[in-house]
Amino acid sequence: MRIGFIGLGRMGAAMAANLLKAGHELTVYNRDPARTEALTAQGAKAAETIGAACRGDVVVTMLADDRAVEEVVLGRGGVLESLAARALHLSSSTISVALAERLTEQHARAAQAFVAAPVFGRPEAAVAGKLFVVAAGEQHALALAAPLLAAVGQKTFVVSETPKMANLVKLSGNFLIAALIESLGEAVALVGKSGLDREQYVQLLTSSVFDAPIYHTYGPLIAAQRFEPARFAAALGYKDIRLALAAAEELRVPLPFAGVLRDRFLALFAHGGETLDWSAIGGLAAADAGLAPC
Amino acid sequence: MRIGFIGLGRMGAAMAANLLKAGHELTVYNRDPARTEALTAQGAKAAETIGAACRGDVVVTMLADDRAVEEVVLGRGGVLESLAARALHLSSSTISVALAERLTEQHARAAQAFVAAPVFGRPEAAVAGKLFVVAAGEQHALALAAPLLAAVGQKTFVVSETPKMANLVKLSGNFLIAALIESLGEAVALVGKSGLDREQYVQLLTSSVFDAPIYHTYGPLIAAQRFEPARFAAALGYKDIRLALAAAEELRVPLPFAGVLRDRFLALFAHGGETLDWSAIGGLAAADAGLAPC
Amino acid sequence: MRIGFIGLGRMGAAMAANLLKAGHELTVYNRDPARTEALTAQGAKAAETIGAACRGDVVVTMLADDRAVEEVVLGRGGVLESLAARALHLSSSTISVALAERLTEQHARAAQAFVAAPVFGRPEAAVAGKLFVVAAGEQHALALAAPLLAAVGQKTFVVSETPKMANLVKLSGNFLIAALIESLGEAVALVGKSGLDREQYVQLLTSSVFDAPIYHTYGPLIAAQRFEPARFAAALGYKDIRLALAAAEELRVPLPFAGVLRDRFLALFAHGGETLDWSAIGGLAAADAGLAPC
Amino acid sequence: MRIGFIGLGRMGAAMAANLLKAGHELTVYNRDPARTEALTAQGAKAAETIGAACRGDVVVTMLADDRAVEEVVLGRGGVLESLAARALHLSSSTISVALAERLTEQHARAAQAFVAAPVFGRPEAAVAGKLFVVAAGEQHALALAAPLLAAVGQKTFVVSETPKMANLVKLSGNFLIAALIESLGEAVALVGKSGLDREQYVQLLTSSVFDAPIYHTYGPLIAAQRFEPARFAAALGYKDIRLALAAAEELRVPLPFAGVLRDRFLALFAHGGETLDWSAIGGLAAADAGLAPC
Repeated sequence: MRIGFIGLGRMGAAMAANLLKAGHELTVYNRDPARTEALTAQGAKAAETIGAACRGDVVVTMLADDRAVEEVVLGRGGVLESLAARALHLSSSTISVALAERLTEQHARAAQAFVAAPVFGRPEAAVAGKLFVVAAGEQHALALAAPLLAAVGQKTFVVSETPKMANLVKLSGNFLIAALIESLGEAVALVGKSGLDREQYVQLLTSSVFDAPIYHTYGPLIAAQRFEPARFAAALGYKDIRLALAAAEELRVPLPFAGVLRDRFLALFAHGGETLDWSAIGGLAAADAGLAPC
Repeated sequence: MRIGFIGLGRMGAAMAANLLKAGHELTVYNRDPARTEALTAQGAKAAETIGAACRGDVVVTMLADDRAVEEVVLGRGGVLESLAARALHLSSSTISVALAERLTEQHARAAQAFVAAPVFGRPEAAVAGKLFVVAAGEQHALALAAPLLAAVGQKTFVVSETPKMANLVKLSGNFLIAALIESLGEAVALVGKSGLDREQYVQLLTSSVFDAPIYHTYGPLIAAQRFEPARFAAALGYKDIRLALAAAEELRVPLPFAGVLRDRFLALFAHGGETLDWSAIGGLAAADAGLAPC
Repeated sequence: MRIGFIGLGRMGAAMAANLLKAGHELTVYNRDPARTEALTAQGAKAAETIGAACRGDVVVTMLADDRAVEEVVLGRGGVLESLAARALHLSSSTISVALAERLTEQHARAAQAFVAAPVFGRPEAAVAGKLFVVAAGEQHALALAAPLLAAVGQKTFVVSETPKMANLVKLSGNFLIAALIESLGEAVALVGKSGLDREQYVQLLTSSVFDAPIYHTYGPLIAAQRFEPARFAAALGYKDIRLALAAAEELRVPLPFAGVLRDRFLALFAHGGETLDWSAIGGLAAADAGLAPC
Repeated sequence: MRIGFIGLGRMGAAMAANLLKAGHELTVYNRDPARTEALTAQGAKAAETIGAACRGDVVVTMLADDRAVEEVVLGRGGVLESLAARALHLSSSTISVALAERLTEQHARAAQAFVAAPVFGRPEAAVAGKLFVVAAGEQHALALAAPLLAAVGQKTFVVSETPKMANLVKLSGNFLIAALIESLGEAVALVGKSGLDREQYVQLLTSSVFDAPIYHTYGPLIAAQRFEPARFAAALGYKDIRLALAAAEELRVPLPFAGVLRDRFLALFAHGGETLDWSAIGGLAAADAGLAPC
């Protein structure tokens, strides 16, 4: 297939590379064109405008937030204006449920196909083509998207014919991870303040009841209070909690843990932590307890 | 070794059976003597009093809560009065940090050895000898306890020479599980209220980022709101959150998630849920959201 | 002065009447024109369009929420297009800090004067001209507004030259009242569940330490769980908590109580309570405690 | 009447002085006897033992916490052993509901009368005889207590024949005040971080909607972050929140605001704030927001 790919951050670049490897013809666009070089070296064409990346059968977008997606898709010379009728927009960005709904309406009006397909996984998983993909859209659009999703992920979960549902699932997943980080942060503060070694404590957890990748990933960071470099920036983590809360507001669902998480991020940012890894909220319980960094 | 074993609930009975299988000479005591029969059939002797179970080298206690341990250990004719000097009390009950400290002092005064060794694992794991044991005590006491712990668990983690530390770690672990239950409850409420199937949603989670035993255990219960029969009663789960909060109070550690959990249990009990499985707190977010049971 | 007045809800109608009484020449506009009659009977002129209400020296707007203000002020044929240069827009609606900032910029560009002057007080206070007014804007604009504010309120507090500051103060005040409602709700649930009479309990509070108008207003409603008719609808109260949280997000200020309040409103709405009085969130603690309505 | 008075802290000393002024014959006891001098100078007799203060018709106790009351009343040579049958113990300390229940049982067994009569008011109010008294006990006991209560307070509220009910009401009242402090702390953090002057902001509040003594008392302290000297120590305030939570636990009443308050006190204590005024929890929202002290 002839595919356009817009958004070459760490996640996007890795996904694009896997599409190339799978034999697709790829045209890539990035706001900062320097990031296209690694991909052109692998055989991709570089587009100089968004429109130039929208001339194929599919355009994939993988962008940081609602604002970037609004600009790239709904802005002048954007995806919506440029994509042919019946061509597919595959949106992998983690965006709000409300924006996913707007995109669905706009693409429908333009007779374009639309699939929301956010992904779970760290950049390493993206490189290895091991992402988990959550996809939603109409049958025919999903059929178009299927081979691409197979190229970037180890498994695709189709959850609904309504695209925004995939975004809701993605946001709920990031909420679950953030809640896990906070709970580890509280447990480490409690046990750490008793004088036990925090890293040994986390090792105990991850060698027993909590022997799961997600605890192995975050436990040691929290025990050691090692929040740099960021693999997923706190500012992005906060964005997702906000979007989960916004979806919950729309649906009338009280979420007490999410409220606590929101405040944790704000306290972190009030002290300059936007660029730390999002697991840095797991250091705040220890700080509140007056526990010195290890 | 000649071992006394007091407390033959589901966990205790399974642990005692594994001590028998490992070749130890066992004398068992239970308040309700009917529960001793299964073990005498396997070769244990039944004691008619607590004292009669304290005549060997070691006595293991596995009881429901602080009150039961206070009665059995500190009461008239109890373990403290009955155990020989230098003999070992191995306490596997999930009790408060404060009571563990008191037991440590009292046993020291009586020149008795004391090890706190609470365990992680469901009754099935206890039957299979696959518990995780968290142990703390003085070196010589731990040396005495080691073969017993090896017989009941798949792994022993020695965390400190101070017994109460093991209890703190155990309580922190149950807090982490309860927090996981609540976070799943909130995520299921959010996604469920959007109209997605809750059981498929949980299946997606446990087939991807949350493919870990602990999520497999609780996720489906929460999705299906199936909280009976209780495998770990809400009343016991609440006790552990209270004890974690009590320890946190002593150590001056604010725990916002634990505070939310406390309120969840109280709301559950205010509506008659003491005997449900503790994962029933994971159904309250859906109830608050006005979501009908599936 | 020649004044236009847009928005004749209960608050707006009372404020407009007081401006008439103070001798000003008033032209009133309301989306539903039926509500203009009471005022034309008192001497006001009725405008058929927003523009027709903007031909004087000042136009006052008193509308329900951001959306209404955006339409009326920024929409086609709205205040911004219609008001003469140097004329004043006096905005008394409780709106977001962000919208107040946008209005400030737009009016500045149009060389129009702008004052934000939200008010505290129930409709009865508005009728009596006893509102408290919180005002912010540039000196000359405030000078123009002063006689009008004196006509509607018992006291004007000038807080800043930056209009949005007045809106922030107003939102913070509504947060304080909502927090008071929730705290009363929790206290009434606690004491009520012990068996004491809830209404006598509230009477005790308001005859002693809490002998203040705000407790007299809300205490009896909460004790009696009498949340209809709404004097200030829950949907509006929720809006203000949301706007306070939005402002707090912008400023990076964690607000744990506000987070609890947000969830209370969502739980209320999930069970159909949008049209109740906002003090209905003060009934939820009793419901969580399994306490039957009195 | 011949009255013994035990506990001459600032509150107790003031109450005892008012009993003297009302013409009663007073024998006072304090652990540190130096504090009896001011009262003997006014005509009281000093007792050297608790027992010596229990020889009259009534003994009043005004002590810091449960532990002190347990020692003084239930300890060897204490009130329970010393008081004559039919004599009255009037307990004005702020103690737990559970201890009030125990005292009720013990006094009943000893055929002694018992009234719980905790008070609301600062030391200044105690000096002026302007306390609010919340009293509960059997009719005949209340009748005995009435003239004493009239001497120390401006108003007595009889809430029940069951003494512990008065303690519950007192604890709920202190919870309400602490919630007010926290809500002011959050509002001041929000508005303060926008750049408005915090003291002027609080002045605005207390000159308008919140023109009530309780806001006048705490608002300026929080705005100025002036938490020394303590008029009511944070350690005591925390005790009352804990006792309210303990009562709520017994009654199965979730109290989300009280949970937040608990964490605030623990964070304060983790940073050394036990001896500050309890309004110091109202400074934590500003600290979390990264707002420098004024």
